Amino acid sequence: MQTVSVSLGDRSYPIYIGDQLLADASMLGGLLSPHIAAHQVAVFTNQTIRDLYGAQVEAALPDYAVDFFVVGDGEKYKNLESYSSAMDFLMTKRHHRSTCLIALGGGVVGDLTGFVAATFQRGVNFIQIPTTLLAQVDSSVGGKTAVNHPSGKNMIGAFYQPRAVIADSAVLGSLPEREYVAGLAEAVKYGVIADAQLFDWMEANADGLLRRDVQALAHVIKRSVEIKADVVARDERESGVRAILNFGHTFGHAIESLAGYGTWLHGEAVAIGMVMAARLSEEMRMLPQGQALRIAKLLQALQLPVSLGGDLNPEQMMSAMGMDKKASDGRLRFVVCSAIGEASVTEDHSPQALQKVLAESG
Amino acid sequence: MQTVSVSLGDRSYPIYIGDQLLADASMLGGLLSPHIAAHQVAVFTNQTIRDLYGAQVEAALPDYAVDFFVVGDGEKYKNLESYSSAMDFLMTKRHHRSTCLIALGGGVVGDLTGFVAATFQRGVNFIQIPTTLLAQVDSSVGGKTAVNHPSGKNMIGAFYQPRAVIADSAVLGSLPEREYVAGLAEAVKYGVIADAQLFDWMEANADGLLRRDVQALAHVIKRSVEIKADVVARDERESGVRAILNFGHTFGHAIESLAGYGTWLHGEAVAIGMVMAARLSEEMRMLPQGQALRIAKLLQALQLPVSLGGDLNPEQMMSAMGMDKKASDGRLRFVVCSAIGEASVTEDHSPQALQKVLAESG
Repeated sequence: MQTVSVSLGDRSYPIYIGDQLLADASMLGGLLSPHIAAHQVAVFTNQTIRDLYGAQVEAALPDYAVDFFVVGDGEKYKNLESYSSAMDFLMTKRHHRSTCLIALGGGVVGDLTGFVAATFQRGVNFIQIPTTLLAQVDSSVGGKTAVNHPSGKNMIGAFYQPRAVIADSAVLGSLPEREYVAGLAEAVKYGVIADAQLFDWMEANADGLLRRDVQALAHVIKRSVEIKADVVARDERESGVRAILNFGHTFGHAIESLAGYGTWLHGEAVAIGMVMAARLSEEMRMLPQGQALRIAKLLQALQLPVSLGGDLNPEQMMSAMGMDKKASDGRLRFVVCSAIGEASVTEDHSPQALQKVLAESG
Repeated sequence: MQTVSVSLGDRSYPIYIGDQLLADASMLGGLLSPHIAAHQVAVFTNQTIRDLYGAQVEAALPDYAVDFFVVGDGEKYKNLESYSSAMDFLMTKRHHRSTCLIALGGGVVGDLTGFVAATFQRGVNFIQIPTTLLAQVDSSVGGKTAVNHPSGKNMIGAFYQPRAVIADSAVLGSLPEREYVAGLAEAVKYGVIADAQLFDWMEANADGLLRRDVQALAHVIKRSVEIKADVVARDERESGVRAILNFGHTFGHAIESLAGYGTWLHGEAVAIGMVMAARLSEEMRMLPQGQALRIAKLLQALQLPVSLGGDLNPEQMMSAMGMDKKASDGRLRFVVCSAIGEASVTEDHSPQALQKVLAESG
């Protein structure tokens, strides 16, 4: 097992990365219990994950009263209705301010659980046990919690850090292929924005990653969360550098929103969005020509989509991006890269370059 | 105009206290505009207050797009439905992350607005313009934001500080008598928990306070927010000393809840609760006999209720207090006082003393 720390003063927390962490009840109990203040625990999960791993979490906490709150499976359940049901559940089960919530699932479960934890009785402890690759390399770390509004993704939420993150690569074996691969997109993102070596390594080890090789996964998860932990420690509330984590996301969120949430997996939309963001960087002459193609090739080698295949309406994209929460006072902010391994935020994008990228992506 | 500061590092903010602050458009504009990052402003208020003061706020912000969100009047509208409607409103009006919300109203408007501000796009600026005495001396300061759950008051919320508080004593002239008087209860609380001189002064100046004398109000508002600012600066998230601000509130919330929100005004329930908390302190031999009576006399001089008049069921009270959010892991925490001007928190209350106080209050 390896441990990466997120350094945020008295809100610092460990990320535990390893194989078979959930299967070992005494180890899991040892990782969880220091963060549980009282005898109450509420595990938030979906039915699939509960069936697979619910008993393991329960077995790790024999001395606690463990309640399960089961959320519907999918992005469409990450909304205020589920949030309200979760509050009803905690009140009915008489959870107190000293309770601890455990998010056992992917990004939907993690984002919802975190937002409930942030706001139940003005804030209770929570622990992330991400069960998708996307959640392990990205969404479980950094304290962004949210639910969606019908008009926009993650529009309602809070910055609220977990007490610990437990990333067990063994659980990734049960992921459907499409969902597993979507998670690799965020790992590619970490290479593009901050670590050329990680990018090179992923190019050389694409086959191992697709085979879900345990050593390859350990490397990619560790480097991804190290990069994320470093960025979050420098800018927790995204007033500056943290925005580079959104590379590909302004386009990606618009793609998800226009197609209807659930059509594209988040990682797939981000893969397409990253190619668009890299092309924008090229058109703005910030990135040498050919780098967007190199990014696209790695994504394709990982069996990720790199274009919408003729299904993009530039006007609708502009509108969808205008309501994106990354827009600051009506001005679009884009994350651009100047080399593989280097990214920055600009509000001074070229409208012509943007139009060209949208047109060619249609 | 006087200014009191709440010292919380980069989240510090000023409380402006004065007379006729809203009537002077250029002064009000000068107080508001430094805290508004962009051109958008959303004023949250109720219909009564909008009719009285909405035009003054609009006149102070001629260069801004000002949208009004009107909340129903009363505690029963401080719920997740109003919260959800507020989110719909902000999305429909296309408010961005750089928007600023203004809470123009009493505690219901302030608590709801603050919670919306805390969670819209993971946090936007907000300013408090409290229009009740209760909100001016207490709820607008300190960053406690929340809505109610059907099973408990303030169960859903966040700690989130405003950018500024503007307390204009002129608006108190339009308050109904009962609502005005209820606000005095929280000022009495500040005397009891932290300032014997303020308590003495209120005893000597009860008539002036009932007449809403501008000088008397200026003194009581300033001392109350100074005490609150000091306590909040030492313990923003209520992990310790801040709990003394809840003196009388464990009983008070139970009284409000059992009678049905809206039957008692919050300040009235707190007045009754303070007498009970003082009696509990006496029964636990922490407070010399006779002090509870002195507190009750001041509250009566201010035309506040000091008992339920035969309408208290001890078993129901115990149950209602057990679900109070101040209960830590099922154990009741009480704020007790050891002298007028000194309070502390105890988990080691005497069950016998508690039963006696509940029985005599019935």
